[in-house]
Amino acid sequence: MVLIDTGQNIYRETIQLDSNEVTPGSSVSWSVRKYVLRGGRQEGIDVVDINNGKLNFTVVPSRGMSILKANIADLRLGPDSPDKLLVNPKRIDLQAPGGLEGLEHFNEWIHHSGLKFFRVTETGESDDSKGDNEKKKTLRDEIGLMSASLVEVVIEREAPYRITIRGKIDQGITGGGKFELWTEVSTEPDSDTFQISDKITNLSELEQEFEILYHINFNGSLAGKGAKFFGPMRRVTPIDEHSASDVSNFYKYHGSTADFDEQAYNLLFWADDDDQTKVILHNKSLDRAVSMAFSVEQFPFFALWKKQSANEDGYVTSFEPGTSFPRNKRIEREFGQVPKLAPNQSRSFQIDFTLHADKKQVDDMQTHVAEIWAGRKTKFDSSPHVSAKV
Amino acid sequence: MVLIDTGQNIYRETIQLDSNEVTPGSSVSWSVRKYVLRGGRQEGIDVVDINNGKLNFTVVPSRGMSILKANIADLRLGPDSPDKLLVNPKRIDLQAPGGLEGLEHFNEWIHHSGLKFFRVTETGESDDSKGDNEKKKTLRDEIGLMSASLVEVVIEREAPYRITIRGKIDQGITGGGKFELWTEVSTEPDSDTFQISDKITNLSELEQEFEILYHINFNGSLAGKGAKFFGPMRRVTPIDEHSASDVSNFYKYHGSTADFDEQAYNLLFWADDDDQTKVILHNKSLDRAVSMAFSVEQFPFFALWKKQSANEDGYVTSFEPGTSFPRNKRIEREFGQVPKLAPNQSRSFQIDFTLHADKKQVDDMQTHVAEIWAGRKTKFDSSPHVSAKV
Amino acid sequence: MVLIDTGQNIYRETIQLDSNEVTPGSSVSWSVRKYVLRGGRQEGIDVVDINNGKLNFTVVPSRGMSILKANIADLRLGPDSPDKLLVNPKRIDLQAPGGLEGLEHFNEWIHHSGLKFFRVTETGESDDSKGDNEKKKTLRDEIGLMSASLVEVVIEREAPYRITIRGKIDQGITGGGKFELWTEVSTEPDSDTFQISDKITNLSELEQEFEILYHINFNGSLAGKGAKFFGPMRRVTPIDEHSASDVSNFYKYHGSTADFDEQAYNLLFWADDDDQTKVILHNKSLDRAVSMAFSVEQFPFFALWKKQSANEDGYVTSFEPGTSFPRNKRIEREFGQVPKLAPNQSRSFQIDFTLHADKKQVDDMQTHVAEIWAGRKTKFDSSPHVSAKV
Repeated sequence: MVLIDTGQNIYRETIQLDSNEVTPGSSVSWSVRKYVLRGGRQEGIDVVDINNGKLNFTVVPSRGMSILKANIADLRLGPDSPDKLLVNPKRIDLQAPGGLEGLEHFNEWIHHSGLKFFRVTETGESDDSKGDNEKKKTLRDEIGLMSASLVEVVIEREAPYRITIRGKIDQGITGGGKFELWTEVSTEPDSDTFQISDKITNLSELEQEFEILYHINFNGSLAGKGAKFFGPMRRVTPIDEHSASDVSNFYKYHGSTADFDEQAYNLLFWADDDDQTKVILHNKSLDRAVSMAFSVEQFPFFALWKKQSANEDGYVTSFEPGTSFPRNKRIEREFGQVPKLAPNQSRSFQIDFTLHADKKQVDDMQTHVAEIWAGRKTKFDSSPHVSAKV
Repeated sequence: MVLIDTGQNIYRETIQLDSNEVTPGSSVSWSVRKYVLRGGRQEGIDVVDINNGKLNFTVVPSRGMSILKANIADLRLGPDSPDKLLVNPKRIDLQAPGGLEGLEHFNEWIHHSGLKFFRVTETGESDDSKGDNEKKKTLRDEIGLMSASLVEVVIEREAPYRITIRGKIDQGITGGGKFELWTEVSTEPDSDTFQISDKITNLSELEQEFEILYHINFNGSLAGKGAKFFGPMRRVTPIDEHSASDVSNFYKYHGSTADFDEQAYNLLFWADDDDQTKVILHNKSLDRAVSMAFSVEQFPFFALWKKQSANEDGYVTSFEPGTSFPRNKRIEREFGQVPKLAPNQSRSFQIDFTLHADKKQVDDMQTHVAEIWAGRKTKFDSSPHVSAKV
Repeated sequence: MVLIDTGQNIYRETIQLDSNEVTPGSSVSWSVRKYVLRGGRQEGIDVVDINNGKLNFTVVPSRGMSILKANIADLRLGPDSPDKLLVNPKRIDLQAPGGLEGLEHFNEWIHHSGLKFFRVTETGESDDSKGDNEKKKTLRDEIGLMSASLVEVVIEREAPYRITIRGKIDQGITGGGKFELWTEVSTEPDSDTFQISDKITNLSELEQEFEILYHINFNGSLAGKGAKFFGPMRRVTPIDEHSASDVSNFYKYHGSTADFDEQAYNLLFWADDDDQTKVILHNKSLDRAVSMAFSVEQFPFFALWKKQSANEDGYVTSFEPGTSFPRNKRIEREFGQVPKLAPNQSRSFQIDFTLHADKKQVDDMQTHVAEIWAGRKTKFDSSPHVSAKV
């Protein structure tokens, strides 16, 4: 079912699909609901709620098909209320100084950046070591703030009745290169898993560089005191001296502290024989977690960013799998870390997310991570490491 | 009654409340009407008209709860038509060069600026004497352009049946400090007075500086040839040489002149024993006026700005009570004129406006001002005075 | 019939007018339809389709009364689909670096720029020879991105039943000068011609400079391989060395080539005794063409811009009649090429467009052009020529 199609001038303001009507054979009760946020700075934002009978999540076509929030049992990811959170991109000034806009984005649970540049969030003067001197352009190339031009919901009519929402984002202008991005978010009824798949196509007749990076943000509800990140680390590199001072604890969360300075680490992971790897973030009591499975061929680079400030000032940690590290494109290019697409060539990217709401599941996932890591070494860099390939 | 609540996704496009239905016991016929402006650059602007039976005024939730216009008898304040005037903030580029945006604001009768900075309207290079070198940031921190996230109308069900419209503006982003501003505009049926009350709360867990300033704009219909400003002046300081050349006439209006250069004066006022002061702007024939009553503890500083150009190019004078003078925050900080709020601390601000439509009322108000001033001296600075506390 | 009037808060979302109801005496079936584009970045754009029974064209009040597209028989001008094309100006960042925004505009068939400056599309540092150092301001003064504040359709009730759509654009702000622009687009039933008329009025009480320039864009469907531009050339000046290298072929199109660099030429035309001139763009087989008739007194200057890139990267040529060349206003001012308007003075501009769909018509129009040119010389400059009046 088409929800939005700018080419056909189709726009459905509200939609309600449910299992009774669409898949009467399904024993699980699921629903898909599209509606529009009203009032204030969120006026006009399109959102789609998917409830697979066990897991709920909200996709935002008006903001690059990002995932606003998800929950399963009492595990709640993303913000508690849309208020203050889903500013219509019309209201965001992409050219404003510094990383303000970047930070506004951390309202969403998951969004992606690209395709010509990542967005970077450093403020102030050009700084080669952090790589923010293409910032102005970067801010503009923000698929996470673009409205999808075509959005549709597809429900398989046979078991397992997979539910898919797909959106197309058009990037690029006359003379400036062109990309088409299809994002699919899908799940099955009664599953605790959902998948994000991106397919990027170069619509230009010239070869083009591209970059894509996910921002997956957690607040104190999961990443609070005693929470830990666990992945099959191959290399851990602090991005600055302040991060380096705490590198051995990079995977631990200590809860909010006033005036906490940001820390960030660039990570490489070990993978299984199929290039697949898994990482997990779990709470202190090991009974709530989120895990991600992805290919290190698709996402060779990963950043882990921590901002353990007072809650009111924004306690957040961000996991950032990408086609390169979230640094200036020029630096990544020097290291050969900026991929290219030939005319009409496509590349696909996929991340499987699982929400774990009991100890057994968390324990099982830790075992999977440990199996990948088993017998393999981890290199911890003791100092920032920006002048050579990490 | 809630008109808008982004947290609950409530948005009422039109509302009509009136005395017959809501306060059948009231002998005065009042009404409150919310509607939406349509077409062109004003598309989607929410406005609320309040008619208390004697006085009409229009509040704009989409632009920081500003007062678009007011009138009583044939005294009309603010623009004659919404056309060209109420540009949706979505259409205003906060980062555009110079003070263009600032000037666009003068379409409204009253709006406020802040909370992290004031807006300044100087163009061009950084200029320490005028203090515009935090301009870029300033433009962004503009509560007067932010949509209220929660708007409600409250009607007291017992005499005097006070009518209140309240709006909440959320300012601040992750890592950038946070403020909540509640603005209330209220009046009583059959009154020639209304009140604006602001309450600012620091929602951050860190101490924060803040600033707030009102822009109260009058065009030639009240501030034309022969009009005068009258207040219990304690000190009058021209902001530049051009203003200084005319300091003894700072309170007089001579009507429009092509190529008139702007003049501005920083003012301090005497107050009564409760720190209350009063100022008035009246026309030449002394039968139409607006007066303001406020606390010099809440608003210690006041600027009077005059632009007596040809009408078509914008004849306007602006009264600007604030927590500091409308200069660069850095300069005000040096003089100790930038207040701070502890975490969760609040500060309140209140201005009572009266519209006077006959000679008796104008005369009475002049007497009140004179009583405060009586026996107290006024210091006139003969030259600009920016290197020391005024 | 009024479609939009921001002053009266009138906004009609959809309108359908047709010959049966409005002009029952007309033997030709015509229609006018207003509707709104929905979804994605085009959400909220007002468009008006005019079908005169032979010729269709689409006017966009939300984007300065531009002409999105037109077609007659199988001659199609402008984009094939609104998708990706009609970004709501709310979504365009006028202050973004470079000419990105400018290029986004080439989605439309015809739009105009001005009135204080033209937009220029050069990127990068200030460059006196190209004249982009007033770029920042230029981008802001873009009537082509402003929504009309008053839009009406007028149908003559007697033969020839002329159909006119008129829109008013208000430009200028308090203290910054003020212009009113009325744009009329009109046609007659069963005609292959339509007319654009602009009337600019200086609403300021000061004398003001102004500029206006049309961008008339053609893609490969008409300006493909073998197509030619034909006009009564008086002087042809390449704007840079790359353009100069090909000056003798400036009027020919060779079809798309990867990595084609832009070329542009400044042109002056001969005219008839009434100062009228005509130019034509026709395809290789000489059976499809568009011609324009205008006054060289109204439009003394004309630029022809070619970007013969691969189609996917934007193959486009642009014809640009203007009150000056599309260079920096400062340069044009030095050459005395920036007109002025006294207070309340108006100037009118008119272009007649004809769409030709058979050989006979194309041939006739070539003859008209040749008649104007006959016996008159053309000066080809062999090198860029920016330091003196062209």
